[in-house]
Amino acid sequence: MKFTCSKNDLSEALQTVSRAVANKPQMPILSGVYIRAEGSTLEMQANNFSLGIIAKTPVNTEEPGELVVVGKYFLEIVRKLSGDAVTISYEPGESVVNIQSESASFNLMAMSPEDFPKVKSQEVVTSFKIRAGKLKNLIRKTAFACSTDEVRPIFTGCLFEIGGTSVTVAATNTHRLSIVRDQLAEEVAELRFVVPAGNLRDLMRMLESSAPENPVTVDYCGKYMSFTFDNIFMTSRLIEGQFPPYDKVIPSSSETFVTANVAELLSAVDRVALISKETEYNTIRFIFSQNGIEISSTSPEVGKASEHVACTIEGPDLDISFNVAYIFDVLKALDGAECRIALNQRLSPADIREAGNDNFIYVVTPVRT
Amino acid sequence: MKFTCSKNDLSEALQTVSRAVANKPQMPILSGVYIRAEGSTLEMQANNFSLGIIAKTPVNTEEPGELVVVGKYFLEIVRKLSGDAVTISYEPGESVVNIQSESASFNLMAMSPEDFPKVKSQEVVTSFKIRAGKLKNLIRKTAFACSTDEVRPIFTGCLFEIGGTSVTVAATNTHRLSIVRDQLAEEVAELRFVVPAGNLRDLMRMLESSAPENPVTVDYCGKYMSFTFDNIFMTSRLIEGQFPPYDKVIPSSSETFVTANVAELLSAVDRVALISKETEYNTIRFIFSQNGIEISSTSPEVGKASEHVACTIEGPDLDISFNVAYIFDVLKALDGAECRIALNQRLSPADIREAGNDNFIYVVTPVRT
Repeated sequence: MKFTCSKNDLSEALQTVSRAVANKPQMPILSGVYIRAEGSTLEMQANNFSLGIIAKTPVNTEEPGELVVVGKYFLEIVRKLSGDAVTISYEPGESVVNIQSESASFNLMAMSPEDFPKVKSQEVVTSFKIRAGKLKNLIRKTAFACSTDEVRPIFTGCLFEIGGTSVTVAATNTHRLSIVRDQLAEEVAELRFVVPAGNLRDLMRMLESSAPENPVTVDYCGKYMSFTFDNIFMTSRLIEGQFPPYDKVIPSSSETFVTANVAELLSAVDRVALISKETEYNTIRFIFSQNGIEISSTSPEVGKASEHVACTIEGPDLDISFNVAYIFDVLKALDGAECRIALNQRLSPADIREAGNDNFIYVVTPVRT
Repeated sequence: MKFTCSKNDLSEALQTVSRAVANKPQMPILSGVYIRAEGSTLEMQANNFSLGIIAKTPVNTEEPGELVVVGKYFLEIVRKLSGDAVTISYEPGESVVNIQSESASFNLMAMSPEDFPKVKSQEVVTSFKIRAGKLKNLIRKTAFACSTDEVRPIFTGCLFEIGGTSVTVAATNTHRLSIVRDQLAEEVAELRFVVPAGNLRDLMRMLESSAPENPVTVDYCGKYMSFTFDNIFMTSRLIEGQFPPYDKVIPSSSETFVTANVAELLSAVDRVALISKETEYNTIRFIFSQNGIEISSTSPEVGKASEHVACTIEGPDLDISFNVAYIFDVLKALDGAECRIALNQRLSPADIREAGNDNFIYVVTPVRT
């Protein structure tokens, strides 16, 4: 096997598949990147069984073949090469692969390509297309709200609900809930599945280098989900279990409605957070009134922060406290200049949306103080 | 006490003195920053007894006074303020200081200024001046070579030797030695002192924001050393003990002389280091010959790296190995396009210099392989 390709192309494709290289592999082969060169296509794969990625890049194949090389060193080495082109050669059965670029020559330990668990396309049950920008947005507005506690796996993923031309993504850690709705170009059969948030974050980062209007093909395969776009194929396991009926969590009515500037709120919350993080429950207090929003936090050891942000308000005043991270996260996810906060009592959940847009709903439970 | 100053000026002065705020203070007061406002000058101090720093910045004092506030939160808060101006007010005897900027108001715990160990100017034994750029260079080319092992304190500092118009700085961890010489504008009495490398690195970072031609006044005060420049006064304890006679370590003659391009060597060593760091002694091997420099490293677990760098050579070929960090460090410290490496036997120290410049000498002991 021998091929030559652009250092930058190789580095980019390697970076993509590296997201699926196991950090603490159960089997040594899972620390490897599978490489296959044939004709003008170089295919790379990594697979940790939760996430599998294939990336393709142009190549000049002198002798076709396949090999597996340890991902970590390979990526570091390719990144540091000084030349524009890289030549990789490998004799089947040999224990090392040679990487050459200008005056540099590396021999890295190779593993047997037969042992590598290839990333497979599963049998597709239902398939639909969505634009890269839309998919990225659906993930950006929900994945942050997931739980990181593996004790209840269902809360570590985002629920996708698809039917007709509508797609809804929901995520919750039981203290906060994020729901975003969007439209698809074509009608799709009804579908419900939960994708691990970590894999979705990896997908989101891969989508960064794709143009927003590029189509992504999403295939539902029962226990797996796959996403195909540009030169990338990614497959993720799904989380089994019953996602709670999230619609019931959205307050059906509210008494107080506040409208405020998102950037001003974010900047104020960011400063108050310096004190909140020194409190026992990361508590931030909001007093909503005709005078505006008083935002504060008090730590007996450090001191007190107070901020004032202008707002318009309808309904009674309210004094309510939250976990500062739950407020900071949603403020970062909001698009548009203004947000609308709908409130009831001091212990009832708050409903935060982009002003004039009901397709993104965030519900957060207050902290009892 | 009440004063108003520019947020950026305050932030910069705070950042400067923060280098001397104790991370794990022996006494709570050492986690504080002392602030004194009088007329148009705001003075800030921090002191951890090894390092003391005073920074001054313009202020509009409404009511003069002094206070101590916890450094960590204060810096974080000032950095995040949105306004251009900051107003700080404090009533002597109160437990909190108020920090105000636009809509933000912070009350931070204050400590008694009487308890703060003020940074003092010691009685000056000898004093001289050096340009900021020269002093920075003396530190940059030596401090990296110090030991970090506190068991033998003398090796954790840089030796300054001054006499006539000459200044020499030397540092060693016993495996490598770095010596740099420069000239002063005026004659100075003979002086020898050892400054902790950590404090010198802090000084170097403070000098970054000073113009290279700015004068720095260096005062030797027996057990302390102080540096005055721009609006900054820094005082460092000195390390007591006998610094070894470093001149004896410099090889008196060499058999092989190699000249090579520094950037090419650095780039090659940087790549080979990826493998070296996986070897037991971080070993990098150099074969110097008429064919150039063959640089390599082999790790049984990972593989082998080989690089070729062109050179001119006088004298016999040599196969010699080093700790890769000791080579990488000096290559980064070298100025000029070319370096000259003087060698004897495979177990004798190597002498690395900038080509045509004998004012910077680096001696490194090989690794026995």
